[in-house]
Amino acid sequence: MATVEQVRQALAGVQDPELRRGLVELGMVHDLAVQGSAVRFTLALTVMACPLKDKIAADARAAVLALEGVETVDIALREMTPQERQAVLPPKEEGGAAARLNHVGRVLAVMSGKGGVGKSLVAGLLAVALRREGYAVGVLDADITGPSIPRMFFPQSPPVRTTPVGFLPAESGGGIKVMSINLLLPREDEAVIWRGPLIGRAIQQFWEDVVWGDLDVLLVDLPPGTSDAALTVMQALPVNGVVLVTSPQRLAAMVVRKAARMVQQMGGRMLGVIENMSYALCPDGTTRLEVFGPSHAGEMAAEVGLPLLGHLPIDPQIATLCDAGQIEEYPAAEFAAIARQVAQGAGLRRIA
Amino acid sequence: MATVEQVRQALAGVQDPELRRGLVELGMVHDLAVQGSAVRFTLALTVMACPLKDKIAADARAAVLALEGVETVDIALREMTPQERQAVLPPKEEGGAAARLNHVGRVLAVMSGKGGVGKSLVAGLLAVALRREGYAVGVLDADITGPSIPRMFFPQSPPVRTTPVGFLPAESGGGIKVMSINLLLPREDEAVIWRGPLIGRAIQQFWEDVVWGDLDVLLVDLPPGTSDAALTVMQALPVNGVVLVTSPQRLAAMVVRKAARMVQQMGGRMLGVIENMSYALCPDGTTRLEVFGPSHAGEMAAEVGLPLLGHLPIDPQIATLCDAGQIEEYPAAEFAAIARQVAQGAGLRRIA
Repeated sequence: MATVEQVRQALAGVQDPELRRGLVELGMVHDLAVQGSAVRFTLALTVMACPLKDKIAADARAAVLALEGVETVDIALREMTPQERQAVLPPKEEGGAAARLNHVGRVLAVMSGKGGVGKSLVAGLLAVALRREGYAVGVLDADITGPSIPRMFFPQSPPVRTTPVGFLPAESGGGIKVMSINLLLPREDEAVIWRGPLIGRAIQQFWEDVVWGDLDVLLVDLPPGTSDAALTVMQALPVNGVVLVTSPQRLAAMVVRKAARMVQQMGGRMLGVIENMSYALCPDGTTRLEVFGPSHAGEMAAEVGLPLLGHLPIDPQIATLCDAGQIEEYPAAEFAAIARQVAQGAGLRRIA
Repeated sequence: MATVEQVRQALAGVQDPELRRGLVELGMVHDLAVQGSAVRFTLALTVMACPLKDKIAADARAAVLALEGVETVDIALREMTPQERQAVLPPKEEGGAAARLNHVGRVLAVMSGKGGVGKSLVAGLLAVALRREGYAVGVLDADITGPSIPRMFFPQSPPVRTTPVGFLPAESGGGIKVMSINLLLPREDEAVIWRGPLIGRAIQQFWEDVVWGDLDVLLVDLPPGTSDAALTVMQALPVNGVVLVTSPQRLAAMVVRKAARMVQQMGGRMLGVIENMSYALCPDGTTRLEVFGPSHAGEMAAEVGLPLLGHLPIDPQIATLCDAGQIEEYPAAEFAAIARQVAQGAGLRRIA
C-alpha cells in the first residue's frame, strides 16, 4: 500500500503545463487520502474553465497509478480561491504573466515595408520549413488590420482559448503555434478600425499575454509600413533578426529599402533578403514568365549590404493551398535551403 | 498715351494663379507711373522665392502691353511686408490656406485593406485614363510609409516647391498633379518612421496645405490597412466615393472585405471593385496563366453588394513602365472602360 507521502511525491513530479511548476509546489493538491489501494484527492485549478484541466488530471492520475499498490484514483476538481490563485500566478504588473513563463529561443521578424510582396507567405513557409527541421515554431501575426496567417494554416479558424495566464495559441496540424487577431474576431472579415496606439498594444499583448510555452523560434509577420506595428515590434519584442522580403520590381525594392533603413536606424540585425514572385511557370513547364519584369532583388540586397537568400516563384498551387488553410502540405523543396540559411544566420538551436 | 487708371484696370484683370484674385485687389501693384509710352510699376510678392513670380510678371507685362500707346513695361519686384502679406493670405487657423483656395470637384479614394494588390497601380491608371478623357486630375499619395506614386509618374523625382500658401504639387508630363511624401524626402528610400498621429497629420496637410488649384477629381491612394491613414482620409477629407482593389486570392478578398466593412461603418460610399493581377499572358500570346489561382473577385464583390468593374492582367510591360516613371505611356485600352464607370458612378464633371 502506498503512503500519503509517496502519493504526494508522485504528484510533486507532475507539472502544470502552463505554469511550469509541480502541482504540489503550486498548492493544487488538497484533501489527499489513501484507503487501501484507493487514492483520493482534490485538484485546485486556477479556473475551472482551464482548457488544460483534462491533461493535468490525466497526468496526475497516471503518476499516482504508477505507484505500487495503487489501483484506483479518484480526483475531484475545484477552483482555487482568489487568494490561492494570487499566490500562484506571476504578478500582473511585470509585463505579462505569460511572458515570464515562456521560453522563446529566437524572435525573427519578417518585414518588407511594401505590402503584398509575400511577407506572410514567407513567414508561413519559413515556419513550415523550420518545423520540418524539427524546431518548435510559433508565428505571431503582427498584421492587425490585414492578418493573413490563420487563413494559411487553418481550414477553419479555431477558437482561441484563454487561461488565467493568458491566451493559448492555436496549433496547426503540423504543430506550429499561431496567434493572430483574426483568431479573436467573431468573423474573419470583421474590420479592425484602430489607430496606432491600439495596434501597438495588441501586438505587445500577443507577446506578453500569449502562452507560447517553449519555442525554438517565434516568427513575427509584420504588416507593410514603417509605422506603429513595425516600431512596436522592434521596440517591445526582443527581435534577434529581421528577414526582408521583396518582389522583382524596382518600385518594391525602393520601399523595402525604407524598411531596411528603419531596422538599421533602430539598431536591428538583418539576416538577408528573399525575393518572392520572381517568375511564373507556363503550362509547358519550362518557360519562365517574369510577370513583374526582370529581378532587381540582387541590386537591392547589395545596396543594403545583405545576402540574397533566394528567389521564390509564383505558384498557383500555393495560392490555392493558402486559401484552403493547407500551407503545410506545400512541398516547398526549394524553400528548405532558404530556411536553413535563416536558421544558421539566426543561430537557431533545438532547445524546446 | 495710356492713363494710370487704364493701366491699373488692365492689371486688375490679371490674377495671381495661386491666390486666385486680381493683382490690384491683392494690393500687389505699387508705384505705378506712365511716362509717354513707358509704364513702370512695382509688384509686391508674398515671398520673393515665389515660384510663380515669373508667370505673374509675364502676365502683368502682357496685359499692360496690350493697351494702346504702351511700348515698354518696366516691372520691379519686391517682397510684401508682413502686414501686407497677412492682409492677403487667408487666415492660417481655418484649416489650411490652400484648402480654402482649391476647388476639387470629386475626391475618390482607392483602397484595398490588403497590401500589394495594386492600389497604387489602379490609382495611377485611373488618373491617366481620366486625364485622357479631359478631366483635371490630381493624385494624393496617402501612403506615407510606402509611397509608390512618384516612381510611376516621374523618371526623376521633381523637387516640390513651396509658396506662402502651401506646397505646389509636382506635375506629370501629362498634366496630372501629384503630391507624395517621397517628393519631400531627400532620398526616395529614406524611411519614414512615424507613429499614427504624425501619419494622419501628414495626410491632412496634403489636403489642406497643397495648392491643388482647380481639379475635377483628386484620387487618394491609400496604404494597406484600416488604421490611421484610412481613418484620417475618411474622416478629414470629403471623400465622395471609394474604389476597392482586390486580387484573385480568397485570402486577399477576405482582407479587402475588412476595408469594405470599414467604409460601410464610416458611412462612406463605394463605387465598385477592380480585380488586379487576374492572369498573365504566356509568350504564345494566348495562354492565360492564372498565377494567383482562379478569380474570387466576383464572389467578393457580390458579398459586399458592389459591381465588379473589371479585371486587370499582370503585364510585365507595366511593371517596367512604372519602374521608369512612364505610366502615362501605357496604352491601358482595357482600363478606359473601367475609368468611365468610375467617372459615371462618382458623377464626375469637367469644371476645372
